[in-house]
Amino acid sequence: MTTNATTVPAYAAPAANAPLERTTVPRRPVGEHDVLIEIKYAGICHSDIHQATNGWGEGIFPMVPGHEIAGIVTEVGPGVTQHEVGDRVGVGCFVDSCRACEYCERGLEQYCVNGMTGTYNALDKNGEPTYGGYSTHIVVDENYTLRIPEGIGLDEAAPLLCAGITLYSPLAHWQAGPGKKVAIVGLGGLGHMGVKIAHALGAEVTVLSQSLRKQEDGLKLGADHFHATSDPETFTKLAGTFDLVISTVSAPLDFDAYLSLVKTDGALVNVGAPEEPVKVGLFSLIGGRKTLAGSMIGGIAETQEMLDFCAEHGLGAEIELIRADQINEAYARVLKSDVRYRFVIDTATI
Amino acid sequence: MTTNATTVPAYAAPAANAPLERTTVPRRPVGEHDVLIEIKYAGICHSDIHQATNGWGEGIFPMVPGHEIAGIVTEVGPGVTQHEVGDRVGVGCFVDSCRACEYCERGLEQYCVNGMTGTYNALDKNGEPTYGGYSTHIVVDENYTLRIPEGIGLDEAAPLLCAGITLYSPLAHWQAGPGKKVAIVGLGGLGHMGVKIAHALGAEVTVLSQSLRKQEDGLKLGADHFHATSDPETFTKLAGTFDLVISTVSAPLDFDAYLSLVKTDGALVNVGAPEEPVKVGLFSLIGGRKTLAGSMIGGIAETQEMLDFCAEHGLGAEIELIRADQINEAYARVLKSDVRYRFVIDTATI
Repeated sequence: MTTNATTVPAYAAPAANAPLERTTVPRRPVGEHDVLIEIKYAGICHSDIHQATNGWGEGIFPMVPGHEIAGIVTEVGPGVTQHEVGDRVGVGCFVDSCRACEYCERGLEQYCVNGMTGTYNALDKNGEPTYGGYSTHIVVDENYTLRIPEGIGLDEAAPLLCAGITLYSPLAHWQAGPGKKVAIVGLGGLGHMGVKIAHALGAEVTVLSQSLRKQEDGLKLGADHFHATSDPETFTKLAGTFDLVISTVSAPLDFDAYLSLVKTDGALVNVGAPEEPVKVGLFSLIGGRKTLAGSMIGGIAETQEMLDFCAEHGLGAEIELIRADQINEAYARVLKSDVRYRFVIDTATI
Repeated sequence: MTTNATTVPAYAAPAANAPLERTTVPRRPVGEHDVLIEIKYAGICHSDIHQATNGWGEGIFPMVPGHEIAGIVTEVGPGVTQHEVGDRVGVGCFVDSCRACEYCERGLEQYCVNGMTGTYNALDKNGEPTYGGYSTHIVVDENYTLRIPEGIGLDEAAPLLCAGITLYSPLAHWQAGPGKKVAIVGLGGLGHMGVKIAHALGAEVTVLSQSLRKQEDGLKLGADHFHATSDPETFTKLAGTFDLVISTVSAPLDFDAYLSLVKTDGALVNVGAPEEPVKVGLFSLIGGRKTLAGSMIGGIAETQEMLDFCAEHGLGAEIELIRADQINEAYARVLKSDVRYRFVIDTATI
C-alpha cells in the first residue's frame, strides 16, 4: 500500500437483494489524520442485511457492508497522534461526523445534527461512497478509530464495535448496575452482548426469549433468569419487575405487554428496529411514569470506554468464524436466527 | 354535621352518559384521622366526563365526579395532627392508597402497587363507593388532604389539585427550568397550567396549539412562543428544538411528527390520554435516544410542593365559575374545548 488511492479486494452486493460477490473497491489516500487498517475480521450485523436489501430505504450500490471491523494499523498519516503502525484497532458504524454540533461536542457523534458518515452505504465529505469492512483494508480518520485493548481477540472484538456498543450505551445511560433488574429481549447477536455486559455491570439479568431453546446458553452468558415470551404466564409472573427492559428484536412486539413488565419510572428501550410503526397504549406509560425509548450505538469516547470495560471483564462476542465465500449463506442463517451468536468474516479469505 | 355518617347534597350522573342531577350521597363518620371538609369549589376535569361516560371502562353509578376540591375544614377526628378547623384545604384525585408499597413509601402514591383509591368512581377499603367533589361536604383522611396556602383564592386553587399537579410533576421530573426549552401541546385546562408553571420554573415556553386562536392568551399566561400545529411549517421550523414536550391532548397525535421536535435525549411526555393505542415509529426514538413517556398527577408530598410553589409565584388557574345547575352545559362546552380555561363549580349552589 502507498499513500496513493488504491483499490482493495472486497465483498459487495452489486444491487439491492443481489447476492454478495467478490470485487474491488477504491480506498482514499492516507491523509494527514488517517490511518490505514489491515482488516482482520468483520462481523455480520443484521443491519448489513437490512441495508443490502434496501429495507431501510434506498441504498448505494455496489455496497460493501461491514461496520464491525477489527484489524491492525499498517500506515499512519503525518498528523496522526493516537495510533501507531502495529496497533490493534477497530472501526464501528461511522467514520466521520460534523465535529461541530452540540452532539459531536458532547461525544454523541452518533446523533450528529448534520448526520454521521456511515462506515458504508453513505457519502463522505467529498461525496464519495463509503465502503465497509467486508474488505482487506480501510482508510479511516484516526478520531473515528478505536483502540482494541490486549486481552480481547480481534475476532471476538469485531462485533463489539456495533453489537457491543449498541447494548453498552443504553445499559450505561439507564444505569444498569447492582440492585437493578434488567431484562434483555431476544438472545441474538445484540442480546447476547447485552446479557454479558449487564451481568458484568452488576445487574440482575433476565433473558426474555421466544422459547427456552437457548436457556442453557443464556445462563452461561451470565443471565440469572430465563423466560419464554411464548408462555403468557411469563407476563403475569414478571409484571412490574424490571427497572430496564432492552429489546433487541426487530419484530414488532406487543409493547403494552412488555411495558407491563417495567416498574414505575422504568424504561423499555429499543435497539432493535421494526421497519413499520408500532402500536402502544399511552395508559401503559402514564400509569407508571414509564419510558419507551430508543438508543443507537454510541459515541466514540463511549465506544472506547466499552472496549476497555470488555477487556477488563474478559468479554468478547461469541462468534462463528466464516470464510468470505460463506457470507450469503450466513445472511440466510441470520434471517433464520440460526447463529450463536455472531458471524465474523475472516477477511484473509476475501 | 356530626361524627355520625350522614348524607349530603351532591350532583351525580345516575348512569353512564346520563345528565348529572341533584341528589344526596352518604359520607362516612369522621374517623380518628379524618377531616370533614366543607367544599367551596370543585373543578370540572375532562376526566370527569371520560368517567361519567364510561370512556375509561365500567364506572360505578350513581357517580359524583370531582377531584379538584377546595374547601374549609369544619371538623377533625381526635387523631388529626396536620389540619385544624378553619384550615383552607384541598383534595385531589385520590383519597387513600396502601401506604406500604415501595411507591407509597417513596411518596408516589399515585402509582401505588395496590391501587390508589380514587376520590370518586372507586371503592374504599371498606368496599364503599367513593363520591367526589360535586358536593357540599367530604370526609377525607388527613394524610390525603392538602394545605392551600394563603395567597391563592380557593376557587382558582381547586383546579391545581388535578390540572396543576398533572403538569407540575412532569415539569419537575424532567427538569424544566432555566436554559430548557419546553413545549406544551394544547392550551386547555391542563395546558394553561403547564404554561404558567413552566414559565415560573424559568423554562423557555412554547405553546403548540391547533390554531393561533388562543395566541394572545398563551403569551399572557407566560408563553414565549406560540405556534399552530395545523401549519406544517411549524414542524419544519421547530425540528429538534425542545428538551421537553408535554402533550395535554387526548386526541391521538402524529407522534413521529411531535418526536421530530424533540432534541436528542429529550422527552415527549403524555399527560393527555387517547383511549385507543397510538402509532409510533421506533426510529423516531432510536435516532436521538428520545423518550416517549407518560405521567399521572403526582404524589401527596409533590402536590403540596406544587401548591406552595403556585402560592409563592402567584399562580392559580384561569377559571369560569358556574352554578351546579350548569354542569351539564359545562360538560358540553368542555367537549367543544369552549372554556378558558377551567370550569369551577360554586358548591354553594348545589
